[in-house]
Amino acid sequence: VGSFALAGDPTACSASGDPESIDEIELLFDRLWPILRSITGDGVRETLAILSEVAPMCRIEVDSTTKVFDWTVPPEWVAREAYVLTPTGERILDMRENNLHLLNYSAPFRGTITRAQLDEHLHSLPEQPLAIPYVTSYYERRWGFCLSQNQRDGLPDGDYEVVIDTDHIQGSLSIGEAVLPGGGQGEVLISTYTCHPSLANNELSGPLVAAFLHRRLSRWPSRRLTYRFVFAPETIGAIAYLSLRGEHLRKSLLAGYVVTCVGAGDRFTLKRSRRGDTLADRAALHVLNRLPEQPRVLDFFPGGSDERQYCSPGFNLPVASVMRSMYGSYPEYHTSLDNRELLSIAALRESIDVYERILRVLDTNRRYISRTPMCEPQLASRGLYGTLGTRESTSFTDALLWVLNYADGEHDLLDVADLSGISLPELANAARACYDARLLDEVTQASECAAVNLPSA
Amino acid sequence: VGSFALAGDPTACSASGDPESIDEIELLFDRLWPILRSITGDGVRETLAILSEVAPMCRIEVDSTTKVFDWTVPPEWVAREAYVLTPTGERILDMRENNLHLLNYSAPFRGTITRAQLDEHLHSLPEQPLAIPYVTSYYERRWGFCLSQNQRDGLPDGDYEVVIDTDHIQGSLSIGEAVLPGGGQGEVLISTYTCHPSLANNELSGPLVAAFLHRRLSRWPSRRLTYRFVFAPETIGAIAYLSLRGEHLRKSLLAGYVVTCVGAGDRFTLKRSRRGDTLADRAALHVLNRLPEQPRVLDFFPGGSDERQYCSPGFNLPVASVMRSMYGSYPEYHTSLDNRELLSIAALRESIDVYERILRVLDTNRRYISRTPMCEPQLASRGLYGTLGTRESTSFTDALLWVLNYADGEHDLLDVADLSGISLPELANAARACYDARLLDEVTQASECAAVNLPSA
Amino acid sequence: VGSFALAGDPTACSASGDPESIDEIELLFDRLWPILRSITGDGVRETLAILSEVAPMCRIEVDSTTKVFDWTVPPEWVAREAYVLTPTGERILDMRENNLHLLNYSAPFRGTITRAQLDEHLHSLPEQPLAIPYVTSYYERRWGFCLSQNQRDGLPDGDYEVVIDTDHIQGSLSIGEAVLPGGGQGEVLISTYTCHPSLANNELSGPLVAAFLHRRLSRWPSRRLTYRFVFAPETIGAIAYLSLRGEHLRKSLLAGYVVTCVGAGDRFTLKRSRRGDTLADRAALHVLNRLPEQPRVLDFFPGGSDERQYCSPGFNLPVASVMRSMYGSYPEYHTSLDNRELLSIAALRESIDVYERILRVLDTNRRYISRTPMCEPQLASRGLYGTLGTRESTSFTDALLWVLNYADGEHDLLDVADLSGISLPELANAARACYDARLLDEVTQASECAAVNLPSA
Repeated sequence: VGSFALAGDPTACSASGDPESIDEIELLFDRLWPILRSITGDGVRETLAILSEVAPMCRIEVDSTTKVFDWTVPPEWVAREAYVLTPTGERILDMRENNLHLLNYSAPFRGTITRAQLDEHLHSLPEQPLAIPYVTSYYERRWGFCLSQNQRDGLPDGDYEVVIDTDHIQGSLSIGEAVLPGGGQGEVLISTYTCHPSLANNELSGPLVAAFLHRRLSRWPSRRLTYRFVFAPETIGAIAYLSLRGEHLRKSLLAGYVVTCVGAGDRFTLKRSRRGDTLADRAALHVLNRLPEQPRVLDFFPGGSDERQYCSPGFNLPVASVMRSMYGSYPEYHTSLDNRELLSIAALRESIDVYERILRVLDTNRRYISRTPMCEPQLASRGLYGTLGTRESTSFTDALLWVLNYADGEHDLLDVADLSGISLPELANAARACYDARLLDEVTQASECAAVNLPSA
Repeated sequence: VGSFALAGDPTACSASGDPESIDEIELLFDRLWPILRSITGDGVRETLAILSEVAPMCRIEVDSTTKVFDWTVPPEWVAREAYVLTPTGERILDMRENNLHLLNYSAPFRGTITRAQLDEHLHSLPEQPLAIPYVTSYYERRWGFCLSQNQRDGLPDGDYEVVIDTDHIQGSLSIGEAVLPGGGQGEVLISTYTCHPSLANNELSGPLVAAFLHRRLSRWPSRRLTYRFVFAPETIGAIAYLSLRGEHLRKSLLAGYVVTCVGAGDRFTLKRSRRGDTLADRAALHVLNRLPEQPRVLDFFPGGSDERQYCSPGFNLPVASVMRSMYGSYPEYHTSLDNRELLSIAALRESIDVYERILRVLDTNRRYISRTPMCEPQLASRGLYGTLGTRESTSFTDALLWVLNYADGEHDLLDVADLSGISLPELANAARACYDARLLDEVTQASECAAVNLPSA
Repeated sequence: VGSFALAGDPTACSASGDPESIDEIELLFDRLWPILRSITGDGVRETLAILSEVAPMCRIEVDSTTKVFDWTVPPEWVAREAYVLTPTGERILDMRENNLHLLNYSAPFRGTITRAQLDEHLHSLPEQPLAIPYVTSYYERRWGFCLSQNQRDGLPDGDYEVVIDTDHIQGSLSIGEAVLPGGGQGEVLISTYTCHPSLANNELSGPLVAAFLHRRLSRWPSRRLTYRFVFAPETIGAIAYLSLRGEHLRKSLLAGYVVTCVGAGDRFTLKRSRRGDTLADRAALHVLNRLPEQPRVLDFFPGGSDERQYCSPGFNLPVASVMRSMYGSYPEYHTSLDNRELLSIAALRESIDVYERILRVLDTNRRYISRTPMCEPQLASRGLYGTLGTRESTSFTDALLWVLNYADGEHDLLDVADLSGISLPELANAARACYDARLLDEVTQASECAAVNLPSA
């Protein structure tokens, strides 16, 4: 009881002016970069507060020890100070220098120990001797430090004084939620995660892209669909969110995306939803296949990020993931080398563009039923067809015929675009003209949601 | 009320002798060529009368102003005379010289006008300066002439006397219908159009092929299926026909073809039905894939000819189109260059052959249910299997085994032909032997029609 | 009434020691080779008795004249003596010299005839002049001899004394059945045939492989599924067996294989079941695709061996056939050249291995339903997930995630293996861990059987 509470004031967005500038993105990146984030704690809340300047959001706080499906929300982690003094008194592995140094969720410890004793608590990567690894221990209490293999190798024998001033308290897990309502009932989910400390492609890129994407959508003249943005810690955050909103999403979700790893790499990657050919997959492919560089398309696999939860068999939601260089597939992944140098602000900006185009496809897509399904309607009398019969047909006429013939309640405009090779805006334009001429009825979004969220085959 | 009337006497066909000769086809072509046809009028009726000599048909007259679905049958067009006198008194653009000169369905006009005024009513093709284009204006009243760009460029300034003696009267739209009854309930539709004036591949080829095809079928020793031949003006004719016979076709049609553009081009083209894999598609492919030249196979698209009406979403009938050089895909299309020189009578003849083979496939095709479905029947005791077991099996035995194993009520002989690589006649022969030995029941054509005309998936 | 009787005592198998040795297989081959087998008779019973030493089996005797579906069990054939004396008194074509010499199921005959009269009863292969063909005449009474073309060509004119001391008596048809029970309800069928006389690849290989396969399975520590081994004469034997056990198999059969032609040829061949993608096909492909040599995969065709009966439309059971050099596809087929020299004992042994692996796949395969389908379960708290979050995931973790995500009651482990590329044992291991942690329920074999034996689509 009472374990979920809403906080924050998602009032009117700063809806003036142009899309974000490169400088604005970079500034936001620089402010978020040094914050020590984890799956709970003030670092997450500070991050959500900064993101709220771009994407005003509610904050949902889920109390520690709340049961969420098979899980229990862990205690909130407080990290005040962490460092080591070498035998010569040098202060090293200070979390203020690089927040990857402290094992994320580390237990507290204070004491003087030998080089050998210290070593049992160190994490490094022999095969990448310059990189500090990102290591966590959420569900078992241990203390530790992460450092480069080179630094580790250079630590002399002697006594080391270890200071880890951390705490695990009864607190809460923080989720940011920003819903941009549309005219109808269908929803689109944009989910990203906020638990990674100073890491760039994976993962400051996701929250940054999601936040600016939100601002762009907030400035659209109108929205047909509702866009739900979720900023949550990975895994436990998505699970907590689904325990709160899962039933709603099962009824209303048309398409969703996990936004992650969108700051580095030339080529886009689509990881398909578990069902494989949902509207989320089709809309993403429609956009990605029209980019200059051919996308990489992967079938669903149950490793990865929060699509693991959205696409768990009991939910099996239409959620895909559009990425650039995917987690696990680039050498800097989960190390200190996944930093500002690896990431490109221009790539981030392009990722915002691509996601906005995908969402425009979703907002534009519709399903129609012809009001004159027996033979073609008389188009000329409605000013929709040239009255002079020549051998040339216009692309508008072509689009009209495609839209009318496939207005069977089964095909949506995206299907027609795939069948015809005609662009979605042209089809939407033709459909609008037919609709205005009362030749078409639109399938309601409620039916649409019901159709999309059928149990998977 | 009373807007549909039957006329003509479709009595016994001239059912003697061999298939049509090249000369006979050519003669018919030459008689039909000069007639000024349009979507209504005496030209159509004269054309149907001549075709009736080969394919005796009923004439259906649909009164002007009759509502047919979303359309209204237009007034009947009467064209008595049309020409222009140049400033020097030369008579040009005379419809009697080339009936493409007169804008089809042109409004009447009589008067003396300047070169510049005349020009607003002229249609030519700058990119093909020798060709007279075929232009129509059915649904807006305007007058005009069509001519080659070269002729247009050579018209001097001065006063021109224009004479267009046409009329739009309360009359009717004429459709020819010739039904060759079969032993059962299933029907095949052969639909072609009769509204094009002096044009050859598109379109005198369709009516010619359909007429001779009709005569060949009338001479078959027996027909299992009913073959319905329709000669109607394009679009409005097919719509009027569907308003009259659509419900019947929904119940009885097994397969249909729009016969058009069958007089020029080496290679055959199949435009699939909207459903894509109906019996019409399968039978056509079965024949076309066995021709020396690989066919071109196109998925359905909602431009084209009367398949637009047959495959409109409310009907979605199993209607495909087998063509040679398709409308819109050759440079002479809808110009005076689509003439006797472009067309080949031998190609017309071959098109008749190919269509007859497709119809034979349909007539031969059947679906069976085994009366001994549990294990094989004992064939040797029925004289259907060699009693000497050697390592060679005959092709008759192979065909028997295929037919018996797939006599499950789901696969028809065409399916078995595709699965086995055995020819349809061999399978039909084996099936007949099994049927005669009371090993098989035939699925009735009524069930067959019901199965074929299920709503599309 | 009383036409089926059980005989024999299928008591405890000799379940000690290692898999069969090459010598043991060869010894059994050598004992079985010279026996004159046919579709009925003592030769079959002697064969079953010898095979019973390896695979203890029941014998089912089906009386002559019993009706089995459309067939009647033929009389039992007794062949005591058969030979010819040449004009010079030389004894040739003696069935004791090569039992292929006597036309199988030959009628009796005794008399002195001319060379020309004899010739009408001779069978040879002009295109393979050294080979004695294997010829049968089960369903028409005739007498005859088979011999090489060379021998035939060398027979001089003169009087020949023919002795064929055979009989067709009221007896029975003999089937061996050996059922190895499993813990649950699902069954696997291994069917092979015992009617071929001295022929090696086709067919002593099948009974030999089936018998040793049975012994291996009898030594498995446990079996989940029930394994049903059938040794029956081809065609009539399978039909008789289905008339006895067909209804049971329709309810309980998960997968089955016709074991034939498994003694010669480097490459394996899968002939798919009629349904094409049953568990039998999938399990076989899972194993065959992992062999060094790519298998040959054929779609079902209704010629061949007893899959013709198992896959007749009324049964349509999930029965495939895994072979090496297939009947009809090698020159020695059904001649005296299909002998010990053609066959390789090592190949036989490998075939036993491959079949055992396929059966292990079937025994291992399971279908699960997650008990925590909404989001992932918390694995770390159950000791199933590393508590230290690093960037490496173990293959065990990967397998866990795949198994859990696809524990939807629709996908079985074989599906997951195909989707994930993870080996079946690894998946089974992960599934077992999840099951033990009460994260999964297993779909019962009864439901499994029901699902597998749905009417084909």
